[in-house]
Amino acid sequence: MSWNARVLVGQSGGPTAAINASLAGVVQTARALGAEAWGMRHGVQGLLADDVVDLARTLPDAASLELLRQTPASYLGSCRYKLPDADADPATYERLFRTLEARRVDAVLYIGGNDSMDTIAKLSAWGARAGSPVRFVGVPKTIDNDLEGTDHTPGFGSAAKFVATSVAELGRDASVYDLPNVLVVEVMGRGAGWLAGASCLARQDGLGHPDLILLPEAPVSEDALVEAVRGLLARKRCVVVAASEGARRPDGSLMCEPPTGAVRTDAFGHAAALSGTGRHLAQLLGERLGVKTRAVELSTLQRCASHLASACDLAEAAALGGVAVRAAAAGETGVMPAIRREGNSPYLVSYGLADVSAVANAERRVPAAWIREDGMDVTSDFADYVRPLVTGEVAPLFVDGLPLHVEPLA
Amino acid sequence: MSWNARVLVGQSGGPTAAINASLAGVVQTARALGAEAWGMRHGVQGLLADDVVDLARTLPDAASLELLRQTPASYLGSCRYKLPDADADPATYERLFRTLEARRVDAVLYIGGNDSMDTIAKLSAWGARAGSPVRFVGVPKTIDNDLEGTDHTPGFGSAAKFVATSVAELGRDASVYDLPNVLVVEVMGRGAGWLAGASCLARQDGLGHPDLILLPEAPVSEDALVEAVRGLLARKRCVVVAASEGARRPDGSLMCEPPTGAVRTDAFGHAAALSGTGRHLAQLLGERLGVKTRAVELSTLQRCASHLASACDLAEAAALGGVAVRAAAAGETGVMPAIRREGNSPYLVSYGLADVSAVANAERRVPAAWIREDGMDVTSDFADYVRPLVTGEVAPLFVDGLPLHVEPLA
Repeated sequence: MSWNARVLVGQSGGPTAAINASLAGVVQTARALGAEAWGMRHGVQGLLADDVVDLARTLPDAASLELLRQTPASYLGSCRYKLPDADADPATYERLFRTLEARRVDAVLYIGGNDSMDTIAKLSAWGARAGSPVRFVGVPKTIDNDLEGTDHTPGFGSAAKFVATSVAELGRDASVYDLPNVLVVEVMGRGAGWLAGASCLARQDGLGHPDLILLPEAPVSEDALVEAVRGLLARKRCVVVAASEGARRPDGSLMCEPPTGAVRTDAFGHAAALSGTGRHLAQLLGERLGVKTRAVELSTLQRCASHLASACDLAEAAALGGVAVRAAAAGETGVMPAIRREGNSPYLVSYGLADVSAVANAERRVPAAWIREDGMDVTSDFADYVRPLVTGEVAPLFVDGLPLHVEPLA
Repeated sequence: MSWNARVLVGQSGGPTAAINASLAGVVQTARALGAEAWGMRHGVQGLLADDVVDLARTLPDAASLELLRQTPASYLGSCRYKLPDADADPATYERLFRTLEARRVDAVLYIGGNDSMDTIAKLSAWGARAGSPVRFVGVPKTIDNDLEGTDHTPGFGSAAKFVATSVAELGRDASVYDLPNVLVVEVMGRGAGWLAGASCLARQDGLGHPDLILLPEAPVSEDALVEAVRGLLARKRCVVVAASEGARRPDGSLMCEPPTGAVRTDAFGHAAALSGTGRHLAQLLGERLGVKTRAVELSTLQRCASHLASACDLAEAAALGGVAVRAAAAGETGVMPAIRREGNSPYLVSYGLADVSAVANAERRVPAAWIREDGMDVTSDFADYVRPLVTGEVAPLFVDGLPLHVEPLA
């Protein structure tokens, strides 16, 4: 297949350790087909401002693409801009399509999560109405793993590898003193508990950490949690709880918020920030159980720790970028390449295409069958699902002891 | 040299990524000399309780010692027990020395920081008074790098590598949106800013992060900090501040506490674990500058991230364990092996011995000459000092995508 065309690629939403691998896959495949690759800065915001860059200039060769693969966060910049409804604001769409025409763009590829697929769905729908020849293809990424239509999403495996490794290391650290104690590790995931669930892999370390896992999908009362931890402390010295930031009580309230709606304040009299599921649970367990507790928030480290990326994840991220380019070359629009799992032993996937309109704005959550009945753990089926996704190590290029990243866009 | 003896080794204080490498060095060298290696559980608490373990049973071979080297935290467990004054409580010392005699121990090696050197100083002093043949040798470790008598301490290089790598990755992550924003990364270090200063190495990434570094040694007013960040935001979109948890105002108060607040202390009279410097500064800068801010606390990850250990650090940690055993075999007591830097290009060290009584309870701080005049950065001399210590990567054994650690002590 050969394709004399110009591809314009963007990145959107929260960065991940794999989103640049998808970009590298797009650029590499476009070039292999004979197409040019251009980038929009800060996602669709850059397209609106005609802020685009010729990637032949900034990513000229295989070496720069390899460094790009190992570089965290969004090389092209990102945005959280949501396209307006086309009927309410046709002018925005007209402007975007004029820019695409002026720039002689044949295909727009957009690497992102649910919101980015919404952007692709809207642009492809407008394009069809306007008779535009431009193709619009999404490329999935999100550490949250909450996209419909695909077995899993690039970015998730690397984040899961960091979360499980960190929980194993933190659990060792928390176990050194001869005192009962509880460590609460807060993991990203507001609506879906895939990433917190992935911490179950840390159990291969031999200390049985995490002992409990709290997911947004399985509300748990604080009393039940306290009693579960009390029971564990009767048997072992150090208990580790992995908690999604979106962990909830049965009444639907977030654990990081007071049930009554009263505003907590910090030592300075400021209203406490919303983030704080881990801190809240550590405080609760300390007060109710009279043991030492500590909260660790894995924070944005879990989405940008490229030095510990999953080789499986980066390979799939790059492959999906390539599949997206080939789909656009074949005339597809309004689609997103998706991963289908063909088997677990050996782990084997194939790539297909999903309709972005079925993906946009939907949220795929951990199925109830993969959550333990008391809501405080995942099952072995969950572990079997996530285990292959963290396998394989990348060998970052280290210079003077630190990973080398691609030169930032000026 | 051959030494038909029994060595009893313990670990104390906060765990690090290198403390088990020192233990491996002790065991390996003891065996090479023909001595037996035993371990005390939870430091001197285990000695008080006669809770010791024959390491020939739990670490029988080279493979288990290699896994031990790659395992974070204290394999033997740790404690924060402070030995009483010998005159005030001779019974404790009599009990300890009876245990050592009953267990036929020839030398006690104690891996730890300032407080552990205090323990070694007290035990060797009592031993000299009582005419005991047991030798007492310390082995330095602390991520804080605040021990006197040695160029640097094992554990610091690995923590520094994690801090600098994380700041580079977090800085990339924070730079993706087209909005002015400030990221505050909170780094461990109550009284000494070595670890926060090490974040300066992240600048090789090309984004100039961190832009500012706050150290306990250089008090800075919040107004001066706000103005410095304001000036940076006029030139660049994303500003990163690396702040020691012990960062202070000119009046001496900790930034994480209200200026009038009282300081709580732990059993050693040290300021109790601080947390909240990053959160406080992020809130302050957000309110004063009207930009988005975020705080990331590197937490205990920075002392237990064995998967990113510095090969230089682990090698030196193991070497010092060996030097300590040889010192004990040569009849030395009340000493600690120390690192002397012979040169920086190439980086070259030699090992000597320091008197523990000169080390115990002292705190080595970043010299004023290595801090920028405004107190908000370190100098290139500081960077030259720390750069060699983060070099070299270990290749942890990964199983199913996660680092393999040594089997925990039952």
